[in-house]
Amino acid sequence: MKLHPGLRKFIPTVIEPLSPVPADIEIAQAAELKPITQVAEEMGLRPDELELYGEHKAKIKLSVLERLADAPDGKYIDVTAITPTPLGEGKTTTTVGLSQALGAHLGRSVITCIRQPSQGPTFGIKGGAAGGGYSQVIPMEDFNLHMTGDIHAITAANNLLAAAIDTRMFHEAGQNDKALFNRLCPKDKKGKRHFARGMQGRLKKLGITEKDPDLLTEEQKAKFARLDIDPATVTWRRAVDVNDRMLRGITVGQGSQENFELPTNYYISVASELMAILALATSLEDMRERIARIVIGQSRAGEPVTADDLGIAGALTVLMKDTIKPTLMQTLEGTPVLVHAGPFANIAHGNSSIMADKIALKLADFVVTESGFGADMGMEKFFDIKCRYSGNKPDVVVLVTTVRALKMHGGGPKVTAGAPLAPEYVDENLGLVEKGAGNMLAHAEIARKFGIPVVVAVNRFPTDTDAELDLVRKIALEHPAIVDAIIADHFSQGGKGAVALAEAVVKASELPTDFRFLYPLEYSIKEKIETIAREVYGADGVDYSPLAEERIAEYTRLGYDRLPICMAKTHLSLSHDPELKGVPKGFRIPIRDISASVGAGFVYPLLGTMSTMPGLPTRPSYYDIDIDFETGKILGLS
Amino acid sequence: MKLHPGLRKFIPTVIEPLSPVPADIEIAQAAELKPITQVAEEMGLRPDELELYGEHKAKIKLSVLERLADAPDGKYIDVTAITPTPLGEGKTTTTVGLSQALGAHLGRSVITCIRQPSQGPTFGIKGGAAGGGYSQVIPMEDFNLHMTGDIHAITAANNLLAAAIDTRMFHEAGQNDKALFNRLCPKDKKGKRHFARGMQGRLKKLGITEKDPDLLTEEQKAKFARLDIDPATVTWRRAVDVNDRMLRGITVGQGSQENFELPTNYYISVASELMAILALATSLEDMRERIARIVIGQSRAGEPVTADDLGIAGALTVLMKDTIKPTLMQTLEGTPVLVHAGPFANIAHGNSSIMADKIALKLADFVVTESGFGADMGMEKFFDIKCRYSGNKPDVVVLVTTVRALKMHGGGPKVTAGAPLAPEYVDENLGLVEKGAGNMLAHAEIARKFGIPVVVAVNRFPTDTDAELDLVRKIALEHPAIVDAIIADHFSQGGKGAVALAEAVVKASELPTDFRFLYPLEYSIKEKIETIAREVYGADGVDYSPLAEERIAEYTRLGYDRLPICMAKTHLSLSHDPELKGVPKGFRIPIRDISASVGAGFVYPLLGTMSTMPGLPTRPSYYDIDIDFETGKILGLS
Repeated sequence: MKLHPGLRKFIPTVIEPLSPVPADIEIAQAAELKPITQVAEEMGLRPDELELYGEHKAKIKLSVLERLADAPDGKYIDVTAITPTPLGEGKTTTTVGLSQALGAHLGRSVITCIRQPSQGPTFGIKGGAAGGGYSQVIPMEDFNLHMTGDIHAITAANNLLAAAIDTRMFHEAGQNDKALFNRLCPKDKKGKRHFARGMQGRLKKLGITEKDPDLLTEEQKAKFARLDIDPATVTWRRAVDVNDRMLRGITVGQGSQENFELPTNYYISVASELMAILALATSLEDMRERIARIVIGQSRAGEPVTADDLGIAGALTVLMKDTIKPTLMQTLEGTPVLVHAGPFANIAHGNSSIMADKIALKLADFVVTESGFGADMGMEKFFDIKCRYSGNKPDVVVLVTTVRALKMHGGGPKVTAGAPLAPEYVDENLGLVEKGAGNMLAHAEIARKFGIPVVVAVNRFPTDTDAELDLVRKIALEHPAIVDAIIADHFSQGGKGAVALAEAVVKASELPTDFRFLYPLEYSIKEKIETIAREVYGADGVDYSPLAEERIAEYTRLGYDRLPICMAKTHLSLSHDPELKGVPKGFRIPIRDISASVGAGFVYPLLGTMSTMPGLPTRPSYYDIDIDFETGKILGLS
Repeated sequence: MKLHPGLRKFIPTVIEPLSPVPADIEIAQAAELKPITQVAEEMGLRPDELELYGEHKAKIKLSVLERLADAPDGKYIDVTAITPTPLGEGKTTTTVGLSQALGAHLGRSVITCIRQPSQGPTFGIKGGAAGGGYSQVIPMEDFNLHMTGDIHAITAANNLLAAAIDTRMFHEAGQNDKALFNRLCPKDKKGKRHFARGMQGRLKKLGITEKDPDLLTEEQKAKFARLDIDPATVTWRRAVDVNDRMLRGITVGQGSQENFELPTNYYISVASELMAILALATSLEDMRERIARIVIGQSRAGEPVTADDLGIAGALTVLMKDTIKPTLMQTLEGTPVLVHAGPFANIAHGNSSIMADKIALKLADFVVTESGFGADMGMEKFFDIKCRYSGNKPDVVVLVTTVRALKMHGGGPKVTAGAPLAPEYVDENLGLVEKGAGNMLAHAEIARKFGIPVVVAVNRFPTDTDAELDLVRKIALEHPAIVDAIIADHFSQGGKGAVALAEAVVKASELPTDFRFLYPLEYSIKEKIETIAREVYGADGVDYSPLAEERIAEYTRLGYDRLPICMAKTHLSLSHDPELKGVPKGFRIPIRDISASVGAGFVYPLLGTMSTMPGLPTRPSYYDIDIDFETGKILGLS
């Protein structure tokens, strides 16, 4: 075991759980917070490696990676889940509870790495995403609101790129090649023209080595100056971190002085490719390179147009320069948490950042992270995309399971957010649990294909009976990939409720692993898709729409076929159809369309319509949110 | 003089100006930065009154105002300007240079209060707004980019309100009164309905005192639940802090599941009423009250609909809760600067925040702030709007004047940004200076109407001759409102170049003042407009469009006629016509339209078309912006 000098000083924050468990915000606001400088010191960071944001948040400078370059990596634990109900099965809560158990109860050095949530849903239906009960990241207000501004910086960069694309089309439409070139390279006071720093990428792409703009041929000048973007091919979208359904379909360019209109739409900010880039970047330089590679659309000649062609990669990197530093916060029991990046788990890979994990692995013996949705989604992408880009190898998979979800998979009535649960979910029903357990085993089987041992964490709910919980455990233990299965009660107990789970995870982490990717990058796009469809989803095969066929041909021509695949699939079924619960069989996966995030570095086949902009309900949660001016506390977050 | 314990420790940062003066960013990046904790200590702040944002920025907690409630206020200096050329005359540079002179050279306790600039223009044409030469706020990268996230928080709140308005119309269009009411007040687990905290404002407005939703009459339920917003009357706009001209005219609601489309447009974020509210709020509670009063449009019955009717004032306040704390930074010579709020100077009042000034006045003997555009614009609003809401009284007006601008007013050729200056501006031309000096005197005369002494600061340019400068000084000193006129060279010298100016300001601040508003709030809207038009602009009278007449009648009916007036006028002339230079005579002011920012607390007559969304040029400055990965420095900001 590594000896981290700081860790010997770790002082857990003592919690005294109440029963019944109060509301999340009440627990969070009653919590004792260590100064973040103390959390940092305890985890082995130097004061000069921190940038404080108030008293309870800090960004960590990347220089720590240089200092610790030779330190061995800690154990790398991914928390995933079975196919969830629409209510969620407590994955973040388990991630935090397990960490609290490891750090505050077993005395292990542990760092939790999780995603920053979108601010949009905070004011809509869903509450916060900081965990729940006695397993939370605090201060939960900061976690759920602006935090350290990363999403805002991404939004700003995203929208600057959008403005740059459209304004370039506007200027190109109104000027001939010569005027355009002369404006792009204006004369200085001495009458001399220059190429700007941001123009080097495009010059290189065009093979222009001449340094003096005036010495280019007319043809070179025209090629350089006119991107000739085809408006119909622009795939870059504006973004806002608000649930604004009216922006799902809009037309821009209707001002009196514009020369073209464009139908488009907004994404919620966390769906921006820039968020996926932040999550996958391995350094600031790498982030800039990925940004430069972003493909925003095509020229009328059918060639990809990149951020680099627009000369804007440097400016976008400057806007995002602070986002690459993970934000340090803490759990209710005082263990350190790195909150960093929050890409979508369907059109993107749904994992927190590589940077945070890399820092954590150097500092702690155990790094607990979470991947989005079930093992068929976030975990597969964790392995095949994130670990492929990071080079880090996972040691243990924790598979969060609930009696409720297994009952649903066993044929229980539909579970709907906001509606009361059917009696099947409240009363003991061993038959449904048994019938539904196959879903859990299927997810464990996926992990086995990657060569990683699985610990099942049964996240206990108050209505679960001992017989139901024991049954889950018994079935789980029969599966060869599952090395242990533990009933955990961290929601109502905090880390104490997950001590057995933590012990099982420690034990599992000592097992030998045989980590392997599901497919090599050399596979064709279709081979990759079909491998995932058969091996992970259990499909009989894949059907491609004519549009998808077209894209595959195009992406292959452009060389994007060497990127990993990020399936944009529903998380509510192992299949593409959210209605198919349990372990669907005898189905084929339909590929409707295929897109690419060339900058982030993946191709994403669309298996259905993925919503990239949530809406607000008739009675949004913003009605509850306010400040109590007597106490200064925020009210109504959940 | 107040004795602030911290100030005795003030250590100026020594600068050694180079000649010729290097680029702003080179000076800024070569500068020595004190830790912001030291700047705070020197100005008399306690460590627990700071929230650090890295090493060189901190937010100041409002608790400092309670601690210093009994401290006397320092002298309150407003820096304004004559009618500028489109290039600007160095008002921020003078504000900073004067502060550096007071603090670092005269040993006076001084705090500078300035606006946070929009991030949009940083990537477009204009460079940064942190001053220039050897009179700058640093770090200039932080000042010009995200700073401490205030504009991002405003953007988020602005857009949440926009989404809430449109989504409410969507839900109301699809549901009858009963369904709407039942969804707004859903049954809890015990079958009981409740009004949410955010609903109290609307209940009060409707005179409903009943606490049990089920006991309302059907009519009350309908009135409560249906805001019945007329889409055509919605004046609230979405916002983005990017120069995105394609958003000047758009249509939203074109997604397949929407039930209405709406033509609308975006503002740049700093034009949001929320920015004006931040600038005028006198406490967090006051900010919440102003947000609640925001009028977003009208019901079909013609009644105003407010943010409070939507139940969202608390949530918007929570999103903006940290914005109310000013951000502390420093000048090149180590004096403290509070950067806070940045409202437009035409459709809003163009002044930094009341909160920052209040804190500064308690801490320092001299508070130097800046108002937007010329004395006819920002200064008039500083007095009539900002000082009216704050209750603070100004002591001195510093009127920034340049030989270049006076020549333009004297009949010199048109000055255009980006184009080379005509020889008249480069060579000595006493005739043009003399002919143009009336503009300076007219601005001084405006200050006199408010009873405040004027010190003219002639901001020296390298091409100015001694004869020209002496002439400006001589003419200025003949005016009864001008107590002194000083040639200042802080751009190339830093504070040392403004020592004489600082001495003159100190002297002027000891004079008796007779501060008075230009009009009482009891005046009708027309009386107020006409007072400003005649007394400040020198107009013969005012003409109202039929639309403006309609609005005046409506606003008078609604009681908005008791608000102060914020004229949305060009800053390039004392009149409404940017072509009329010098001291225009014999003109009448046309009022095209009138709007109201009821939450911020002013009515704004529109004297022309005010751009609320800048665009990007063919060759935007983002081409130059990048990171030097060797040094970690940001390149290309200016």
